[in-house]
Amino acid sequence: MAPIPSSPETVFTYGAPQLKFGSGASAEIGYDLAQYGARRVLIVTDPGVAATGAPQRIADQMKPYGVEAEVFDGVRVEPTDAGLREAVERARDSGPWDAYVAVGGGSSIDTAKAINLLTTNDGELADYLNPPVGAGRAPARPLLPLIAVPTTTGTGAESTTVCVLDVLALKVKTGISHPRLRPALAVVDPDLTRTQPAGVTASAGMDIVCHALESYTAKPYTSFERKSPEQRVPYCGANPVADMWSERALSLIARSFRAAVRDGDDTEARADMALAATFAGLGFGNAGVHIPHAGAYPIAGRVREFRPAGYRAEEPLVPHGMAVALTAPEAFRFTFEACPDRHIRAAELLAPGMEPPRDAAEHLPRALLSLMRDIRMPDGIGEVGYTGADVPALVDGAVKQRRLLDMSPRPVTEEDLAGIFTRSLSLW
Amino acid sequence: MAPIPSSPETVFTYGAPQLKFGSGASAEIGYDLAQYGARRVLIVTDPGVAATGAPQRIADQMKPYGVEAEVFDGVRVEPTDAGLREAVERARDSGPWDAYVAVGGGSSIDTAKAINLLTTNDGELADYLNPPVGAGRAPARPLLPLIAVPTTTGTGAESTTVCVLDVLALKVKTGISHPRLRPALAVVDPDLTRTQPAGVTASAGMDIVCHALESYTAKPYTSFERKSPEQRVPYCGANPVADMWSERALSLIARSFRAAVRDGDDTEARADMALAATFAGLGFGNAGVHIPHAGAYPIAGRVREFRPAGYRAEEPLVPHGMAVALTAPEAFRFTFEACPDRHIRAAELLAPGMEPPRDAAEHLPRALLSLMRDIRMPDGIGEVGYTGADVPALVDGAVKQRRLLDMSPRPVTEEDLAGIFTRSLSLW
Repeated sequence: MAPIPSSPETVFTYGAPQLKFGSGASAEIGYDLAQYGARRVLIVTDPGVAATGAPQRIADQMKPYGVEAEVFDGVRVEPTDAGLREAVERARDSGPWDAYVAVGGGSSIDTAKAINLLTTNDGELADYLNPPVGAGRAPARPLLPLIAVPTTTGTGAESTTVCVLDVLALKVKTGISHPRLRPALAVVDPDLTRTQPAGVTASAGMDIVCHALESYTAKPYTSFERKSPEQRVPYCGANPVADMWSERALSLIARSFRAAVRDGDDTEARADMALAATFAGLGFGNAGVHIPHAGAYPIAGRVREFRPAGYRAEEPLVPHGMAVALTAPEAFRFTFEACPDRHIRAAELLAPGMEPPRDAAEHLPRALLSLMRDIRMPDGIGEVGYTGADVPALVDGAVKQRRLLDMSPRPVTEEDLAGIFTRSLSLW
Repeated sequence: MAPIPSSPETVFTYGAPQLKFGSGASAEIGYDLAQYGARRVLIVTDPGVAATGAPQRIADQMKPYGVEAEVFDGVRVEPTDAGLREAVERARDSGPWDAYVAVGGGSSIDTAKAINLLTTNDGELADYLNPPVGAGRAPARPLLPLIAVPTTTGTGAESTTVCVLDVLALKVKTGISHPRLRPALAVVDPDLTRTQPAGVTASAGMDIVCHALESYTAKPYTSFERKSPEQRVPYCGANPVADMWSERALSLIARSFRAAVRDGDDTEARADMALAATFAGLGFGNAGVHIPHAGAYPIAGRVREFRPAGYRAEEPLVPHGMAVALTAPEAFRFTFEACPDRHIRAAELLAPGMEPPRDAAEHLPRALLSLMRDIRMPDGIGEVGYTGADVPALVDGAVKQRRLLDMSPRPVTEEDLAGIFTRSLSLW
């Protein structure tokens, strides 16, 4: 199977934002900003979230603490390099700022990370993008405090050190990854997710599921060669801390995912999903993800006509969580043999009432398929518009995510990926 | 039972240092300091730890990163106000510093917290001590980065926001508590705990057990009245995040505590205990502790002749973890009725193989007593020198820890405490 390291890693790292969680938590951000000594802050959001009134309400609630806020609502869903450059320009022109507050989904939070980086450090976006697309430069100076306020229950961007974006000229998804990008504080207020439509709850929820499952089954940190401190990366492989967050996220999902999709007013289920998203973010943000996330990049990037229910999308769109989920059953059928115990344990947590199938390799795929049918995920990548003829292009896109594929507990070839995509054309 | 709040709390907070864990982790501190831009740092330790050579080795390993370190080895075990003032003076005289590194047990880490506070903020120790002893002032300015490197597996001081000390003139134990005191980074290297004698492993390990059990059974955050952001404290009551850390710490304890006491060279057991100490610290550091910790203050403070095995103590001493443990079986027998499910679950985690007793209230006390006998804890407070005649004075000492007693899931009177101390004179 995977090669055995000559000098195995003995150290893992774990980083996290401070957390304030619960109904009403977003009303206290002025106080939190004052603790950082901030007086003038930029709120980064997208037009859809701005329309709910939440960013302006958060801005107004800061005034008693002597904090003045401006709302920038120009974030584009699925940020591009062009969009990020524009957002950074706007922030530079209207700055200087003492802190940033991101209110929204992963796109808003990631845009705020890029703004924070490029208003505190020299250079331009391309300098910091992961190689080979960019120069992979590390920020030389500390960033400003960023408070992340997620309004969708999925990405976990409030916990992570990455900013993901599309580079338009290269038609490639890449990112910036550095511990300094991590928000200082995550304010998770389940009340802000009430307006999330069922389709968004379903897709974003599958992102949570896959964060937990992929980081739980990722190569363990001890299976890598020993790193020098300079070589350490935030994603260090499965480890005891990330495992714990992933397990707990799966239990919350088992209890509340179906209910949250069925009834958007089920406040307990909403709160569980908000907690699960954060927990899974704290897990994968320190361990890493693998095949389903690598496959999601081309599935989302090469979309033709698909328009999902529940999304106000002007353009065709395969939502990130859906794109991740559609190859997950086949990916975990493939990785099973590398660490059967973890796959079985994950299935037990995700589907505690399920009768274990005779073939243990089927346990996790079946738990996933049952969940995906119940929350009305499409029946495979065929239903979002792909055919067997697209498989080579999807494989090409997935292999570009080498950093993710290297986290797979079982080494994965292009042929393996082709098999996973082909068998994912129709799932049931 | 406990009064029901008119407007129940809906928000909990969670803070933690960044973590680097594993064999060899302490060799990388120079790199970590360089990330904070530090060039000149003070290493805070005690003479016993200094004699192991670890602090000097850590200092030497910083040089390649351009970080210059000085070792201050004047920390006293169980810090006093006088000792802390002296340490602060020394740090002020030899400063300014860019960062601090604490290498040692809770005493060294807490001393470094006080030094950090009083070299970055105005005022003196008494200004910051918890009321009514001190003025309870909050630090107006951010502190410097503090890297905590625990060499004992117990206190969890690397995770918490408190500095505990004896105020000599008042013969009272109190502390300073503020989120800004929390170390920025915990470097937990199990190799540094190899020299810990069995008696220290046993007492410090009981501190871990009680951190986990007390925070797991603490009043839930939702049982308090709603706080304004200004009123929030790091210890917010049992909550889903702290629960998770506590549960995992108990499982690690169940697997490795006896083995770590029996054989100091069992590196896996040592690593589990180091992880358990950190996990429990992350739990109780956000939830709180209650009766056993409140009772520990007078048990340790009023010691007469007792000298424990494994400690190089010049003075009579009841080690903190031992002092906490000795009333724990009776305390949890008392609190059982407030949240039976949590007591039973905790017992199952602590003693997974144990036959549940017919009386469920006996489950956790029996699990504790079995463990305490196996690791050779004394048979109650009688064995460390107390008699029934001391009970009123012990009660007096415990009720001064009102902040801790308020975390008890069952309201506790002086009479209740007297009963707990009396029944703890002899445990088996």
